[in-house]
Amino acid sequence: MNQPFTSHDRLSLNQITLNRLTLKECAEACVRHGLKWTAPWRNRVHEIGVKESARILRDSGLRVSSLCRGGFFPGATAAERQDHIDDNKRAIDEAAELGTDCLVLVCGPAPDRDIDAARKMVEDGIAAVLPHARDHNIRLGIEPLHPMFAADRSVIVTLAEAIDLAEKFPASNVGIVVDVFHIWWDPKLYLELHRAAGRILGFHISDWAVPLPGIVTGRSMMGDGVIELRRIRTAVEDAGYHGPIEVEIMNESLWSQPADDVLALTTRRYLDFV
Amino acid sequence: MNQPFTSHDRLSLNQITLNRLTLKECAEACVRHGLKWTAPWRNRVHEIGVKESARILRDSGLRVSSLCRGGFFPGATAAERQDHIDDNKRAIDEAAELGTDCLVLVCGPAPDRDIDAARKMVEDGIAAVLPHARDHNIRLGIEPLHPMFAADRSVIVTLAEAIDLAEKFPASNVGIVVDVFHIWWDPKLYLELHRAAGRILGFHISDWAVPLPGIVTGRSMMGDGVIELRRIRTAVEDAGYHGPIEVEIMNESLWSQPADDVLALTTRRYLDFV
Repeated sequence: MNQPFTSHDRLSLNQITLNRLTLKECAEACVRHGLKWTAPWRNRVHEIGVKESARILRDSGLRVSSLCRGGFFPGATAAERQDHIDDNKRAIDEAAELGTDCLVLVCGPAPDRDIDAARKMVEDGIAAVLPHARDHNIRLGIEPLHPMFAADRSVIVTLAEAIDLAEKFPASNVGIVVDVFHIWWDPKLYLELHRAAGRILGFHISDWAVPLPGIVTGRSMMGDGVIELRRIRTAVEDAGYHGPIEVEIMNESLWSQPADDVLALTTRRYLDFV
Repeated sequence: MNQPFTSHDRLSLNQITLNRLTLKECAEACVRHGLKWTAPWRNRVHEIGVKESARILRDSGLRVSSLCRGGFFPGATAAERQDHIDDNKRAIDEAAELGTDCLVLVCGPAPDRDIDAARKMVEDGIAAVLPHARDHNIRLGIEPLHPMFAADRSVIVTLAEAIDLAEKFPASNVGIVVDVFHIWWDPKLYLELHRAAGRILGFHISDWAVPLPGIVTGRSMMGDGVIELRRIRTAVEDAGYHGPIEVEIMNESLWSQPADDVLALTTRRYLDFV
């Protein structure tokens, strides 16, 4: 097991952790707490436009670990699927303009009961946007979601599945994003992380508390749950990933607290548990 | 894909679907609706005692597809784990007295963050109760639970894991229970069901609706969700299972409806969707 961190150099604040703040407020809060990285969400980027968002992030001195999120490829009709492809191309443009090299893909649910067909639509969607991503030096990070989101957010639900899918494409363009909340339960977790070597484009942390405080908003602060964070972090590093570590916590209780309190807790828990 | 059923011969009512009824009330309701099978829960059995429960079920003419539930093997101390083993032996006695040959195992959560150690405790627990089960002609059915229950109900969370665990023991004594709610999302679902041939001891149905109405009470009536019920039923039959099919639905809205309405809906949906 690796040693605890002694600095916050790799800590990135995924902005949904401070969901009530604008992009500008969030960037300022990150700077106040000495962070070096952040990861914006597109809804907050769109509020003020990509240009202004890019300027704020550049002026802040923060580096951008990823953009959340592209994906949602399946659709009931060819026209819908094309709309999704077009939206992913816009997300790629935005990611490039914001100065990150990684677009996180939440792959989307099936439009009907046929989950296997939807999985094929995801593969086809990634293939369709890949040239655009390559042209803009953006890598696509397939994030397997927890199986409890299989019906409404992502038909890609295990590390094995995400790796198999990524391996259909060049490693320089397509990889996976490892989020502990989604994958901690997997009996093959460490085998699959080992297999993911060279394909890990991002690492997201939070915790799984009992009882779960929600479904979409079910994540907790590191240390408040059962996830073996340091063990998983060690395995991710052993697989060759040494990039930014995003704290991504959707949690109503945290959202209702002052941002500075949340960031103070986040930076402490990062050293204690990750 | 197999044909729809034309009778309810294989339909079994898992009594938690009518959670507000006593064992006697539930048995009477099953008989009123022409069912041939039921599956009691231990809490309802204990309310009136095993002898009286067995008498009611025998007099009703219903067959007992399984007893819910044994398991919950892990514990923080050896004494706790022994308590759990003793309780499983009592559950085996009860199953035998109630006239079923199958005890469903919900394997239990880890007592701490070490999920791998807890998985070993489950294996050890099954090994410890196996001779008692064999002596009473009870087969132990390992039910993999949905990964969203990994922290509080079962460290056994995939078909693959349940099959691997079952295969450490003789097929005549230990198998798996396939519940669609827990396994429908699995990218390897049909491969694993094929591999489970000869080990399937029970088949449970419900549905996964969007949005999910809860976590523990997250199940819905067949047809109200996204699960490919007939396709999974076909695969389970192809794997050699032709026994009773338990409807097991924890759902607050269904629980608040009159039992006869729920059973009328259950029997209709069984023909339409399973």
